Amino acid sequence: MADEVILLDFWTSPFGKRVMIALREKGVEFDTREEDLSNKSPLLLKMNPVHKQIPVLIHNGKPICESLVIVQYIDETWGPESPLLPSDPYERARARFWADYVDKKIYWAARSAWVLTGEAQEAANKEFIESLKVLEGELGDKAYFGGERFGYVDVSLIPFSTCFHALETLGNYSIVEECPKVVAWVKQCMQRESVAKSLPDQHKLYDHFVARKKEHQAQ
Amino acid sequence: MADEVILLDFWTSPFGKRVMIALREKGVEFDTREEDLSNKSPLLLKMNPVHKQIPVLIHNGKPICESLVIVQYIDETWGPESPLLPSDPYERARARFWADYVDKKIYWAARSAWVLTGEAQEAANKEFIESLKVLEGELGDKAYFGGERFGYVDVSLIPFSTCFHALETLGNYSIVEECPKVVAWVKQCMQRESVAKSLPDQHKLYDHFVARKKEHQAQ
Repeated sequence: MADEVILLDFWTSPFGKRVMIALREKGVEFDTREEDLSNKSPLLLKMNPVHKQIPVLIHNGKPICESLVIVQYIDETWGPESPLLPSDPYERARARFWADYVDKKIYWAARSAWVLTGEAQEAANKEFIESLKVLEGELGDKAYFGGERFGYVDVSLIPFSTCFHALETLGNYSIVEECPKVVAWVKQCMQRESVAKSLPDQHKLYDHFVARKKEHQAQ
Repeated sequence: MADEVILLDFWTSPFGKRVMIALREKGVEFDTREEDLSNKSPLLLKMNPVHKQIPVLIHNGKPICESLVIVQYIDETWGPESPLLPSDPYERARARFWADYVDKKIYWAARSAWVLTGEAQEAANKEFIESLKVLEGELGDKAYFGGERFGYVDVSLIPFSTCFHALETLGNYSIVEECPKVVAWVKQCMQRESVAKSLPDQHKLYDHFVARKKEHQAQ
């Protein structure tokens, strides 16, 4: 019997996109169920009763939650011939460190830059660029974060690139000027079918964010 | 040549204690270097230039940072006969999910309950107990979170038990009344040499926290 693989997702979520990209890198067939986050489905509430959040991967009826946990599960379950994490324990630890850095720094700074206003927003813009520059330094002249192979850190970070346009428009700065190597890496990642097929259009995302922000301010 | 294993730590840190416990579970000899967090050593700044935080494990000169990353590194590097993470990918994902839950919920609620005041503190107290009750439900009647074996989730959570006395004293509630299974699990874990030898005395920790809070309020 073939595996039944279902992804509970919302189209703007960079976390959901990590899971999509990892599944496509491994050549796993899956169904996506788009959630209405203002009216979450009984399936989502049943499958992730603790956090009640997307993404959730449901593999033959069993749920896996939290995007980095899911990506590691995918890596350990399918396609050992195309691993996302390196085999060496030290290199694995480094990859996990940088994926964790994306969650702790890039996500929060990007979110704050979008949600906050005034001086707090300025500070968040600055923190976002500083955090991205740290990744620029880590990337250096490598093709991907792990070297020659597209891997775990790339999967973790690349979904956030669709917010770059919104963030630089909002903050009135240029990411390509600040972090040219990261921008070249984004272009290289976008050549991969797994990435190009999974990420939303950055302009559509920008329009969505602007509309949400207006709604939020009107309340 | 024998491995050189150095842990940069601070005695109150539950994150540093995770690393100690994991090393002791694996029977790894190590040296601990106590950091002065108000005047961090050049070694710490060199070994963790990104976050500048303890704990850092230095294995034959190479640094590994972030406690859960370090515990997984230890598990993959030493003592395959006494694994901390289960071998089944789904069970591994579950263990990673709950360790992440400890970081996201237990740590933040405990910290907020200690740092905040007034209504915000009340809310944090409530959140801490609610989060611990979720773990009580997950533990159920098992000996350890993973079943019969002391493992990754136990290592991740047990260091926070030394704050229970401080938190219930501050919040005027009883953890054993709210979460009797968790408290029984703490007692069982404390029977292990790896745990008993690593955790600080809860009363000494309480006195330290009270003194720090007074200093903070006086500023």
